[in-house]
Amino acid sequence: MASNGIVDVKTKFEEIYLELKAQILNDPAFDYTEDARQWVEKMLDYTVPGGKLNRGMSVIDSYRLLKAGKEISEDEVFLGCVLGWCIEWLQAYFLILDDIMDSSHTRRGQPCWFRLPKVGLIAVNDGILLRNHICRILKKHFRTKPYYVDLLDLFNEVEFQTASGQLLDLITTHEGATDLSKYKMPTYVRIVQYKTAYYSFYLPVACALVMAGEILDNHVDVKNILVEMGTYFQVQDDYLDCFGDPEVIGKIGTDIEDFKCSWLVVQALERANESQLQRLYANYGKPDPSCVAEVKAVYRDLGLQDVFLEYERTSHKELISSIEAQENESLQLVLKSFLGKIYKRQK
Amino acid sequence: MASNGIVDVKTKFEEIYLELKAQILNDPAFDYTEDARQWVEKMLDYTVPGGKLNRGMSVIDSYRLLKAGKEISEDEVFLGCVLGWCIEWLQAYFLILDDIMDSSHTRRGQPCWFRLPKVGLIAVNDGILLRNHICRILKKHFRTKPYYVDLLDLFNEVEFQTASGQLLDLITTHEGATDLSKYKMPTYVRIVQYKTAYYSFYLPVACALVMAGEILDNHVDVKNILVEMGTYFQVQDDYLDCFGDPEVIGKIGTDIEDFKCSWLVVQALERANESQLQRLYANYGKPDPSCVAEVKAVYRDLGLQDVFLEYERTSHKELISSIEAQENESLQLVLKSFLGKIYKRQK
Ligand SMILES: [Mg+2]
Ligand SMILES: [Mg+2]
Ligand SMILES: [Mg+2]
Ligand SMILES: [Mg+2]
Ligand SMILES: [Mg+2]
Ligand SMILES: [Mg+2]
Repeated sequence: MASNGIVDVKTKFEEIYLELKAQILNDPAFDYTEDARQWVEKMLDYTVPGGKLNRGMSVIDSYRLLKAGKEISEDEVFLGCVLGWCIEWLQAYFLILDDIMDSSHTRRGQPCWFRLPKVGLIAVNDGILLRNHICRILKKHFRTKPYYVDLLDLFNEVEFQTASGQLLDLITTHEGATDLSKYKMPTYVRIVQYKTAYYSFYLPVACALVMAGEILDNHVDVKNILVEMGTYFQVQDDYLDCFGDPEVIGKIGTDIEDFKCSWLVVQALERANESQLQRLYANYGKPDPSCVAEVKAVYRDLGLQDVFLEYERTSHKELISSIEAQENESLQLVLKSFLGKIYKRQK
Repeated sequence: MASNGIVDVKTKFEEIYLELKAQILNDPAFDYTEDARQWVEKMLDYTVPGGKLNRGMSVIDSYRLLKAGKEISEDEVFLGCVLGWCIEWLQAYFLILDDIMDSSHTRRGQPCWFRLPKVGLIAVNDGILLRNHICRILKKHFRTKPYYVDLLDLFNEVEFQTASGQLLDLITTHEGATDLSKYKMPTYVRIVQYKTAYYSFYLPVACALVMAGEILDNHVDVKNILVEMGTYFQVQDDYLDCFGDPEVIGKIGTDIEDFKCSWLVVQALERANESQLQRLYANYGKPDPSCVAEVKAVYRDLGLQDVFLEYERTSHKELISSIEAQENESLQLVLKSFLGKIYKRQK
């Protein structure tokens, strides 16, 4: 049964986490003390496995589609899951550090790791450790594969792009906080693509391609399509932060209070007349609920909900046509499966 | 002339920094804005080239000794310097983050990078960027070399060990601050070896070996000797922090005030009688100068200066005999050159 099949994949995926954790806690390259081992175990359990695991599980999903029709061995499933976990580890690393830099309070429904009294800024080093675990995992499971070096290069390049996107975001928000007019569409798109799209959309498919023996340089189109999809995903995220149902998305958005360079504020700044601009300048980035309400009122006056629906429609149409321009049919399936998961999502 | 020769190497080395920086600021994997490019340039100039450059320059020094008698091409000198800079980049990355975690104020005679008002916790991401630059540099200059993957593995393993050593240090100091008796010799040695010795002593020689076509697994002895040497170096560092001449070492030590797990306090705890123990417990880790003086008085009463001299003598003797047990004579020269630079140093 299909639903059983899906449960099995997730169960299998989660079991592999335990195996990888055990290997890390017994890595011969470091002579753990009992205290250090306990610390790392607690940190891993707190920060790595608690997300939706979409990014991680999509590696093996994509690999299956790429190998359409061919039998996949137990070993291949295992390796696909291992790569998936490497992406989850990468995400956990980014999130630990991002929460510190944003002085956030909660993450995945619990206090941010650095907010725990015993942790504090030790969390900076914990983030680094997570990044290093990826290399340890890759070395243990892929060192003898012909594509080992391609995996290292891939993770390195995507991490570089993500950190560079973070820098842009940090600089822009810094400047935006003193001058809202710095929030412009090209800047927005650049931040989103580097900070989110490469590691969330491109990386899982790229891992599957590398495992399937493909050379990534031959798939620049695929990269571009996935980066576009990631941009579309972030625009949705920004839209739902303001107009989504908190009951459905599971949290109350605070992008307006937090002075975020959101797709909505960028659109609003492009469309506002003098008096609307003044209202935005006077109310954006303030914690006061009446300020937030005023910003939302400007968004409504400008019809941003319709602007978003139109963006969604166009964006989807363009993505579909880029996907259908791909020669390789299994690749089309991979890309359509990704797009299907996010199109018109409400959470 | 020898002195001219040395000046040339340093000048050459420093020129290569400018070349690497220019490549990073024009890396096609990221679409820099002018603001982002300026930020990264300022950050690099502030954090990377201002140290003593000993670690970095020792790669090419070691390589020359390994190739004893053979002509070395311009290209080899360049690549040795590039690897040296990768180590300096790694060091800058560790130091930026270490200063944040230790809430330090100054570094290399200027405010720590994160202390600059415009920077703050953006420094966390800047540290990450430095780490990522290493991979970009290695890829650009070594991708086609047969030993490229060995370089990646080497930097990854050494970084993992350093971060694991940092974790131990952070946990131990945390616990030591409530119970001084946690500071014991095996813990001390483990922290020092992982946190400092691998990247400062082993890594430069390992880079030279890899460039010379050697397989690192065949040189476990060399690793062990260099890690021992790094331990000896850190013991000196701890000794000089308390008993060195501030005029000569260029700073006033604060290990006692800072509750550091220093070789001196560990030695003192091993040797103290009841009343000396009480004096240590009552005065260690306090900023008050009279407390510091009291701790130093206990050190003097216990004759730690002589204990250190004896340690230095034994340690040197053992290192020399391990070095002379090496079959490869050029390797002996490399190791003796390292040891010669630090034996009985006063700063
Ligand atoms: Mg954040
Ligand atoms: Mg952020
Ligand atoms: Mg959001
Ligand atoms: Mg420090
Ligand atoms: Mg420290
Ligand atoms: Mg010191």
